[in-house]
Amino acid sequence: MDPLPTLKWMGDSLRLLDQRELPVNEVYIDCGDVDSLASAIRTLAVRGAPAIGIAAAYGAVLAAITTDSGSGFREGFLVKLDKLSGTRPTAVNLFHCIEIQREVFRKTGTREDAIVLLLESADNLLREDLDASRSMGCYGAELLEPDSTVLTHCNAGGLATAGLGTALAIIYEAWDRGLIRKVYADETRPLLQGARLTSWELIRTGIPVDVLPDSAAASLIRDGRIDAVIVGSDRVAANGDIANKIGTYSLALAASKHGVPFYVAAPLSTFDQATDTGAEIIIEQRGREELSTLGDRQLLPPEAGFWNPAFDVTPAELITAIICEKGIVSPISSKTVADVHSRVDMFL
Amino acid sequence: MDPLPTLKWMGDSLRLLDQRELPVNEVYIDCGDVDSLASAIRTLAVRGAPAIGIAAAYGAVLAAITTDSGSGFREGFLVKLDKLSGTRPTAVNLFHCIEIQREVFRKTGTREDAIVLLLESADNLLREDLDASRSMGCYGAELLEPDSTVLTHCNAGGLATAGLGTALAIIYEAWDRGLIRKVYADETRPLLQGARLTSWELIRTGIPVDVLPDSAAASLIRDGRIDAVIVGSDRVAANGDIANKIGTYSLALAASKHGVPFYVAAPLSTFDQATDTGAEIIIEQRGREELSTLGDRQLLPPEAGFWNPAFDVTPAELITAIICEKGIVSPISSKTVADVHSRVDMFL
Repeated sequence: MDPLPTLKWMGDSLRLLDQRELPVNEVYIDCGDVDSLASAIRTLAVRGAPAIGIAAAYGAVLAAITTDSGSGFREGFLVKLDKLSGTRPTAVNLFHCIEIQREVFRKTGTREDAIVLLLESADNLLREDLDASRSMGCYGAELLEPDSTVLTHCNAGGLATAGLGTALAIIYEAWDRGLIRKVYADETRPLLQGARLTSWELIRTGIPVDVLPDSAAASLIRDGRIDAVIVGSDRVAANGDIANKIGTYSLALAASKHGVPFYVAAPLSTFDQATDTGAEIIIEQRGREELSTLGDRQLLPPEAGFWNPAFDVTPAELITAIICEKGIVSPISSKTVADVHSRVDMFL
Repeated sequence: MDPLPTLKWMGDSLRLLDQRELPVNEVYIDCGDVDSLASAIRTLAVRGAPAIGIAAAYGAVLAAITTDSGSGFREGFLVKLDKLSGTRPTAVNLFHCIEIQREVFRKTGTREDAIVLLLESADNLLREDLDASRSMGCYGAELLEPDSTVLTHCNAGGLATAGLGTALAIIYEAWDRGLIRKVYADETRPLLQGARLTSWELIRTGIPVDVLPDSAAASLIRDGRIDAVIVGSDRVAANGDIANKIGTYSLALAASKHGVPFYVAAPLSTFDQATDTGAEIIIEQRGREELSTLGDRQLLPPEAGFWNPAFDVTPAELITAIICEKGIVSPISSKTVADVHSRVDMFL
């Protein structure tokens, strides 16, 4: 299938699908300079760690295009690059992609030279992301039986990446092969990425989707209506424990209890060999406003406390397989995770 | 502790705490006739099966007060009683309480006589509900250790009953005994009874409460931060399986996995000996709008399907104890459930 129009280079601007408007409106914004792109990243017009990173890589091209050549060029460019770095504090891909572009820039001479090479580098990052998605899609689709009904959580889709996603890349490939009957998408409180974004992506591709409250997933699994659970991942520890959007652990418990395979799609960029187990992963705590308000509605009394972790950890023993762009890790152990990781070292 | 001001007879009207306005405003409405009370029930100003039943019982008093004496009195009264029956389709307590009042009315002579006896009967129903809550509170509090942090789901509280609740009755009693450190309340999508109502109740009583997304409960339990889970129940089958608000089964799985006691507060009115197991319980499916909109926000694409069950079934083997007004059922089996049930038959 074709990538979603999450981001697209238009020759002199970066066109972004404005995710703040989804699922109600499909609106695009063209960012022709670093200020407008930085604002788009900061205000979540584009979100998802891989998508933000690639957007920032194109932002470096905009930085070069919009800085006058001459004696102030190199300094002016670097000031704009720093502005992109300051947009979001946590997404590691953002800093990673900006460092790549800083390195490219260091080796260039003229402004024209820089524009060409930065664009080439950004295009490469985009292509690598799409290739990884396609590869995960192919490996993952092999695991599904015909006529499968699958359950997913949050948005591990094209909207969070260059256009094809991780967990949803598998679903897209399986759909193309005629293996998918239907997808259930957890709405994914508090930010409702499943309700707003995953359902929008799937509908756009023609895949039937039912959205459910997160808390209803366990009885759906118990009722025998789910053939496989497929989720994304934010980090894979050396022992195969994974951190992913809050609620993933609950799904894994229910899937394990009822013998339903639990698959994790994780590009190698999320493998972290420096973290021994999931217990070492620091879980980001999010703000109160995500639970207390929605649109014009106040949902909590002012005096109520809150607990709003962004992620949880699912232990390796509950995971049937981890699917990355170099293959399938199963059964999961420190050895099989290290093996796939060393495969990268060999190839990259 | 004192009952919440869920409903109160004011001499010639029924005063209701308007739950539609919670948690933002504490507003009361006085219903002086059957039409205004029927509208309050229909539009969820008062909700929770026991609370609706008792409100309707007082509605019968209003029906008598607002019908002229004379030859048309008895017929006029019964027309108004039927209007109350038609307010909500599913809550069995509504029909049960109306039948009790119909029976009381049948035995009365004059209009004045009817008013006195209907009011006495409504007061009895209110008192019985409060007595059952207090009794469940005392039995349940015995199960908790000092300095307990407990997790609850949905609103099994004073707002759903005559003022003291079921699961929350236990928490209130344990709080009075100094056993409660803190309560975690699942927000309980889609209608957010935990966020809006349970937190409001607990804060009003001075009990510290943190609200969390439903999907975060499993990792809270895994982290060892919960000493007991306490939930309500909508139906108890003969084998001890229970139906309760969607999400209860997920909590029970996580509690069982991590060795945390899982308690169900269930007044005997919810025991159903005619239902052998949880598999026989019909699960009500709710509408799409609960998932698709909230206030001014549209959360789903128009083409997205949905799955929105109101309840799920938790099997007896995951339940540590069922607490009713006649005692504690534990371990749970068809025999221990039947024993507690026969105790009712003896005493009532």
